[in-house]
Amino acid sequence: MAVASDLFNDKLFRQLAFYTVVVFVKMTVVQMATTFYRLTKHIYANEEDVKGFVGDKKDVAVVTNDVDVERVRRCHQNDLENVIPFIILGIFYVCSGPNPFLAAMLFRVFAASRIFYTVAYLAPLPQPSRTLMFMIGLGVNVFMAVNIFFSSSF
Amino acid sequence: MAVASDLFNDKLFRQLAFYTVVVFVKMTVVQMATTFYRLTKHIYANEEDVKGFVGDKKDVAVVTNDVDVERVRRCHQNDLENVIPFIILGIFYVCSGPNPFLAAMLFRVFAASRIFYTVAYLAPLPQPSRTLMFMIGLGVNVFMAVNIFFSSSF
Amino acid sequence: MAVASDLFNDKLFRQLAFYTVVVFVKMTVVQMATTFYRLTKHIYANEEDVKGFVGDKKDVAVVTNDVDVERVRRCHQNDLENVIPFIILGIFYVCSGPNPFLAAMLFRVFAASRIFYTVAYLAPLPQPSRTLMFMIGLGVNVFMAVNIFFSSSF
Repeated sequence: MAVASDLFNDKLFRQLAFYTVVVFVKMTVVQMATTFYRLTKHIYANEEDVKGFVGDKKDVAVVTNDVDVERVRRCHQNDLENVIPFIILGIFYVCSGPNPFLAAMLFRVFAASRIFYTVAYLAPLPQPSRTLMFMIGLGVNVFMAVNIFFSSSF
Repeated sequence: MAVASDLFNDKLFRQLAFYTVVVFVKMTVVQMATTFYRLTKHIYANEEDVKGFVGDKKDVAVVTNDVDVERVRRCHQNDLENVIPFIILGIFYVCSGPNPFLAAMLFRVFAASRIFYTVAYLAPLPQPSRTLMFMIGLGVNVFMAVNIFFSSSF
Repeated sequence: MAVASDLFNDKLFRQLAFYTVVVFVKMTVVQMATTFYRLTKHIYANEEDVKGFVGDKKDVAVVTNDVDVERVRRCHQNDLENVIPFIILGIFYVCSGPNPFLAAMLFRVFAASRIFYTVAYLAPLPQPSRTLMFMIGLGVNVFMAVNIFFSSSF
């Protein structure tokens, strides 16, 4: 192979790239939500943030346990714990020669489950809606892992 | 190259895929351990979790500093900080044309070190057993990084 | 394609590998900084760490809210949230057939922004220097994501 871009001739690889962007954008929205809450509620974890964004005169102190900020951060943390493994497993899964229709369906289901997970977390919606979405995403990851396992046995 | 699955003709790439699944499963066990402690000890970080899983009548409040849950979460966090870089470095390392025997040995050592790390953290075993396992895993990552560095100098 | 190492014939892929090592080393320095503060200030999050590294006789307790350790950990967490997505998006971006000069420039800008981010966080420098560095890194990621999005539309 001459160049890495030959991989983009593979439609399934392109689809994985597409859904990677979708979940990346979703994660970035959550990351921006943290910033939004920090700036609007003046919740800063560092002294220099208080100084730089509020100034010395106002009565703002460092806060590390704000309910809204911590909620968004838990959501972001759960993304890191599940979305990153999804993309990595996705790369190996695409390379393991899966059924293209099934694989594309799994990517869609995962992306949708994480979007609804975020809505359920930030709304927040009554449980077990959030846990259900989490389990669906985890299920996709486990399914891909099992398939990689059997395809990679050497 | 027509399809990404051609990469699975490379035995070393398949071995990386295999050990990626191994460390993913290990991470997922830790993630499930968090859920186990949350459900059995009624340690919930969100109001809606308390409502959904316990109900209003019982006297359960939001808790974010439970000793068992925080221990499992620190273990999971350390996984994120080390296992994800391992897989990513592993992909580049496999592409850098390493000695196949050495590379496969590194993957095995890393996977074993993370499994023992988890046992040492959750048992918990006396230190420095956990720190030793951490250093072994980090050593594998650094070794791969150094090799990628010299192979990728352009 | 016979072997994964054929990917290393692609100069841009090698450059991504190179800058992946750069940002990995930077992350590892931050990780080691945590260990440094823990050992020198006796800030341990686990009972067995206190026992193993300090001993029973001295008067050291478990601490989970030390200012220095938490600062380094926030820096490391921000790395996880941004550097890992950079590498993953970078892989897909390289495969999407970008302008090689632009792509290499983006990798350099990202790596530089994260190094200065770390300096700004750990010094600490007055805001908005740190936030500016964060925004530059995020901008690179978003730029790559947009390009992958349009290249992968199928």
